[in-house]
Amino acid sequence: MPATFRTTRLVEFGDTDMAGIVHFAQFFRYMEAAEHQMLRSLGLSITIDWKGEKIGFPRVAASCDYLRPARFDEELTINVKVSKLGRSSVTYSFEFFKEEELIARGQITAVFCRVDGEGKMESCEMPPQVRAKLE
Amino acid sequence: MPATFRTTRLVEFGDTDMAGIVHFAQFFRYMEAAEHQMLRSLGLSITIDWKGEKIGFPRVAASCDYLRPARFDEELTINVKVSKLGRSSVTYSFEFFKEEELIARGQITAVFCRVDGEGKMESCEMPPQVRAKLE
Amino acid sequence: MPATFRTTRLVEFGDTDMAGIVHFAQFFRYMEAAEHQMLRSLGLSITIDWKGEKIGFPRVAASCDYLRPARFDEELTINVKVSKLGRSSVTYSFEFFKEEELIARGQITAVFCRVDGEGKMESCEMPPQVRAKLE
Amino acid sequence: MPATFRTTRLVEFGDTDMAGIVHFAQFFRYMEAAEHQMLRSLGLSITIDWKGEKIGFPRVAASCDYLRPARFDEELTINVKVSKLGRSSVTYSFEFFKEEELIARGQITAVFCRVDGEGKMESCEMPPQVRAKLE
Repeated sequence: MPATFRTTRLVEFGDTDMAGIVHFAQFFRYMEAAEHQMLRSLGLSITIDWKGEKIGFPRVAASCDYLRPARFDEELTINVKVSKLGRSSVTYSFEFFKEEELIARGQITAVFCRVDGEGKMESCEMPPQVRAKLE
Repeated sequence: MPATFRTTRLVEFGDTDMAGIVHFAQFFRYMEAAEHQMLRSLGLSITIDWKGEKIGFPRVAASCDYLRPARFDEELTINVKVSKLGRSSVTYSFEFFKEEELIARGQITAVFCRVDGEGKMESCEMPPQVRAKLE
Repeated sequence: MPATFRTTRLVEFGDTDMAGIVHFAQFFRYMEAAEHQMLRSLGLSITIDWKGEKIGFPRVAASCDYLRPARFDEELTINVKVSKLGRSSVTYSFEFFKEEELIARGQITAVFCRVDGEGKMESCEMPPQVRAKLE
Repeated sequence: MPATFRTTRLVEFGDTDMAGIVHFAQFFRYMEAAEHQMLRSLGLSITIDWKGEKIGFPRVAASCDYLRPARFDEELTINVKVSKLGRSSVTYSFEFFKEEELIARGQITAVFCRVDGEGKMESCEMPPQVRAKLE
């Protein structure tokens, strides 16, 4: 497993809802952006041309537990790590902190897929070079 | 438990991402809108003035399993039911269908809270009249 | 010019921001969805396969004037009409009403484009059959 | 007029749509975030407690011209400046660059408002200390 990847994110006005806090669905956008930053830091990308084939990582599961609300202009620290690595799937775990306090925990499971010319996706085994970077 | 509430939703262009499918985070927006339609059908609302107090339903957990992608202009059928009812919390279960095919399943757990003048939220027991409608 | 197309939209919780009103950027999502409903009512779509070519309508301009805020659970009436039709471009005008009161006015200008295999877009003259429906 | 404020923004996956480009409405989110960064750099904020009153900056107009599409993982440079300053209103102008190429231009006009306890907003003259920072 790789060391935990850490990034930060400033809560924007448009991320909030009329309850005055970050809308719960927005945490999934935060997770995805943190995941992509982690992949980028490993030299990977969410959209890969792999030996002439288009590759994608559609999600098969996503979840989040909310412990404390986040508010406009707060800086969140987000920890990402690969918590499970299958033949074709990868699970990322996320922790959100406000200063030192854990405010949310989430998971995303994505599946490595070939994408054909019409946009149809079929899961396939992860190439060893991709797997090696995630391990 | 109430009978399952059923609604439909047309996928909009802005709900999609560059993979050509509905962005995974968008399903949480769909769930929330379906939840609110169900509450409305029961004479409830997500924002209630309760005996002079402001009441809210912040989320403590949300999850979704994605079986098949949804695409622009497809009409999704969404089933909502109350799957668990605690003293102060309620869990909704959602099923998404495209024609007859189940394409996603999700859950949202919300907690009944008092909101004070500064927007601070504190969980509290659900009023019997609210609980009776959800049962 | 076609008669005005009219549709309605219920403001969702996730459309609001911490000011307690619909976020201003959300009105562009509302306009786009109303535009697509109008196109659908004319037998057109935003994504067309035209004689084996992929066709798109990227936006070149969008604007909105906000007169009154819109809030959660309000039903908005949206009027759409084609206000200008060029060789390759079309401008839609939108009016938002809350009950009888005009609350916002907007415009979107889109250009008819061919999309090649790599997603590159090039503007081209609108096919007469498409133009005839918009006129 | 203040010197131009400059910031950058990485296009996220969730900002894109099925056309493979940043959704046009998303540019308004980018503008707002850049505006807030500029205000922050001046020691101002979008939500101010001013002598015990709550103050807001609702938008009365927003527009964008799109010259070139933006795509996932591209870094955009955004220039912001105050282009007009009225008694109670301020207009920001935005330019979006991809490397050296101008890809979009936008404007937002906001009005300085008092917000009462029920969330109702009333425009009022900008305090001299706020105006001085924007000048």
